[in-house]
Amino acid sequence: MQAELIFTGTELLLGEVLNTHAQYLGRQMAAYGIEVILHTTVGDNWDRLAQVLEAALKRADLIIITGGLGPTTDDLTKDTVARVLGLPMVVHEPTLQWLREFMTRRRAPLSESMARQAYFPAGAKVLPNPAGTAPGALLVHRGKVIILLPGPPRELKAMFEASVVPYLASLGNPGMVTRSRLLKVTGISESQVQELIGDLGGQGNPGIAYLAQPGEVHVRISARAADGAVAEQMITGLLEKVRERLAGYLFGMDDDVLEEVVGRLLAQKGLTCALAESCTGGLTAARLTSIPGSSAYFLGSIVAYDNRVKEKVLGVPAGTLQVHGAVSQQTAVAMAEGVRSLTGAHLGLSITGIAGPGGGTPAKPVGLTYIALATADGTSCREFHFPGHRQAVRQGAANAALNMIRLYLLARS
Amino acid sequence: MQAELIFTGTELLLGEVLNTHAQYLGRQMAAYGIEVILHTTVGDNWDRLAQVLEAALKRADLIIITGGLGPTTDDLTKDTVARVLGLPMVVHEPTLQWLREFMTRRRAPLSESMARQAYFPAGAKVLPNPAGTAPGALLVHRGKVIILLPGPPRELKAMFEASVVPYLASLGNPGMVTRSRLLKVTGISESQVQELIGDLGGQGNPGIAYLAQPGEVHVRISARAADGAVAEQMITGLLEKVRERLAGYLFGMDDDVLEEVVGRLLAQKGLTCALAESCTGGLTAARLTSIPGSSAYFLGSIVAYDNRVKEKVLGVPAGTLQVHGAVSQQTAVAMAEGVRSLTGAHLGLSITGIAGPGGGTPAKPVGLTYIALATADGTSCREFHFPGHRQAVRQGAANAALNMIRLYLLARS
Repeated sequence: MQAELIFTGTELLLGEVLNTHAQYLGRQMAAYGIEVILHTTVGDNWDRLAQVLEAALKRADLIIITGGLGPTTDDLTKDTVARVLGLPMVVHEPTLQWLREFMTRRRAPLSESMARQAYFPAGAKVLPNPAGTAPGALLVHRGKVIILLPGPPRELKAMFEASVVPYLASLGNPGMVTRSRLLKVTGISESQVQELIGDLGGQGNPGIAYLAQPGEVHVRISARAADGAVAEQMITGLLEKVRERLAGYLFGMDDDVLEEVVGRLLAQKGLTCALAESCTGGLTAARLTSIPGSSAYFLGSIVAYDNRVKEKVLGVPAGTLQVHGAVSQQTAVAMAEGVRSLTGAHLGLSITGIAGPGGGTPAKPVGLTYIALATADGTSCREFHFPGHRQAVRQGAANAALNMIRLYLLARS
Repeated sequence: MQAELIFTGTELLLGEVLNTHAQYLGRQMAAYGIEVILHTTVGDNWDRLAQVLEAALKRADLIIITGGLGPTTDDLTKDTVARVLGLPMVVHEPTLQWLREFMTRRRAPLSESMARQAYFPAGAKVLPNPAGTAPGALLVHRGKVIILLPGPPRELKAMFEASVVPYLASLGNPGMVTRSRLLKVTGISESQVQELIGDLGGQGNPGIAYLAQPGEVHVRISARAADGAVAEQMITGLLEKVRERLAGYLFGMDDDVLEEVVGRLLAQKGLTCALAESCTGGLTAARLTSIPGSSAYFLGSIVAYDNRVKEKVLGVPAGTLQVHGAVSQQTAVAMAEGVRSLTGAHLGLSITGIAGPGGGTPAKPVGLTYIALATADGTSCREFHFPGHRQAVRQGAANAALNMIRLYLLARS
């Protein structure tokens, strides 16, 4: 089975938005053994979308179109598909009713533009939107399958997983399938990772690919075979070798995120943590609290951006700040112990550094960061030098801080 | 002048690599007034690339092809272009010589595959690669311009800036140019924006397009004309109408971000702010501190995720928490006034709400959020209901909080 992906949105052509759908859907198609032969990105242009769709219908069996399902006048996808396939647009009553209730909850009337989201090409199977208001659609027309998905990435993924995955699975196994696993490491650079495991494989089948992320490196191991089980077997052997080599740095697999891994460990051990953040400015707390249920183990963070807050709230001695400076081991230790006693948390973690672009000196360059962890076993502090610009330093520092909690909890058990 | 971008590489179709070229080149083209009408991504497949190129040659004046210039057997771009245009491949002696010297420095012989990088379609202008070994090429053939750029982003950007930018600049005004402005609003939904300005225009020239972002809506006004000044004039009239209609919600234009707008206002007025965050968990502070120089006006944030922190650090009365609950106007007010007096900031802003997915009740549903602002003029508090999932509620709350500071500072002047 051959597929084409069509991405709509002038914002994609203008480069205002990064197209992440191409990668997400590309991986999903590969996982289901569907060969994607072409991606096309077209603006919010009725005629051009129609031309692109007509051309795709000549080549592909499955066509996925993203974007243009919303309430506004530049949302043309459903009408264009209806026109190309020669189908009328008809109202889908359950969706209309759902939209009415949605707007009632928001104490607003159902506008005509909102109501447009309830109209679909005749014969379409309506795909509910678990993360937004615009439903998607699945059409089977003259043996071709056309799937319409919303543009916002969260909505697209939620709908794909809820409605499209079961459909693709029902198609059975049409050819070579790809399976892949993602290993996620932190505290090591991409080139260091390559030095550690480069000899185990590169492109090829099974293959190893590297993806550098802020503060992390993701290693992708993938294999293609006629059968999913065989592809998984091909991965397993290589996976174990890579795991061993990266053991000290590996924090998770596949969809794991570091803040969730740390949260699970804290919850398992019934421990609480609190933060004292300077250069990360709340970023570490924001990541920990992005996880549902984090209130079970996260008490709070003192974002002590100004030295007065370090002194007055965290009780860092004025002398320490004067003699050693805000970015010093001594201040980091005082911040960690300060927030631990202030909040009564089991773990007090502090981060103080120079995020840049300004504020660096030869003695204390941009990227220099001290991270201290205060626990019942005492207080430890580490010095880091994070490369890159302001956001990279902040992300690197947040990752290193979360990883310090992770390593402490693992060593403790 | 109309352009198409063709991205080659099976890794893009498989989703192994995120296509960042689309955004980078899209922005560059827009900046030079070149209308990009289509992006196409094709695998390392000789015939399909040929078909895509032939179709593009019928539509576009300028075609940029990325990838497939390297030494390996799946690098087919130059040969395919030569075949489609009916040109022979010829050696470029300076490149061959440069490759010889390059390999000599590496104490390695010049392999045949490496040498392939010195061959180009006859008549091509060779574009040096400042960041790698594979040169690019620029061809003018029957009035069409075809530019070949390497796949690795670092190499592509270096070559584009060194060789393509001067070429595009030399074209002067190649025909119809596009100009666009982005208006950014917050505190209003995409469909509400459409209700307010939909009658002013949709597709067309000048045109209006809508882009929903977490907590924000972006409205793009674009116009095409034979001349940049004319296109800008076409925008200006519409822009003013849209500005008037959206006045209460408009926070910035083009590259403005809300946290930077708020920071600029605070700096201008010489005021400082501090936050007390519950449901946003540090997200608001992280956004404010993502702006270089924010230490001039941002003192810190008390992320009071746990009620003990609300009581002990912010001085929220235990009775208030017991009687009205953590998510209440009374608690929000006490948090804002608490952090203001604790830090001595001019502005104390608090956020407390139910981010979900858990914790909602009929009386206090997920999304309910109270935001209070304590200033020398007194304390105000607003109730919000943010739609969507945990991250959408958190982003919406952070935006509303930043916007409350913005509106206060504007009203004050």
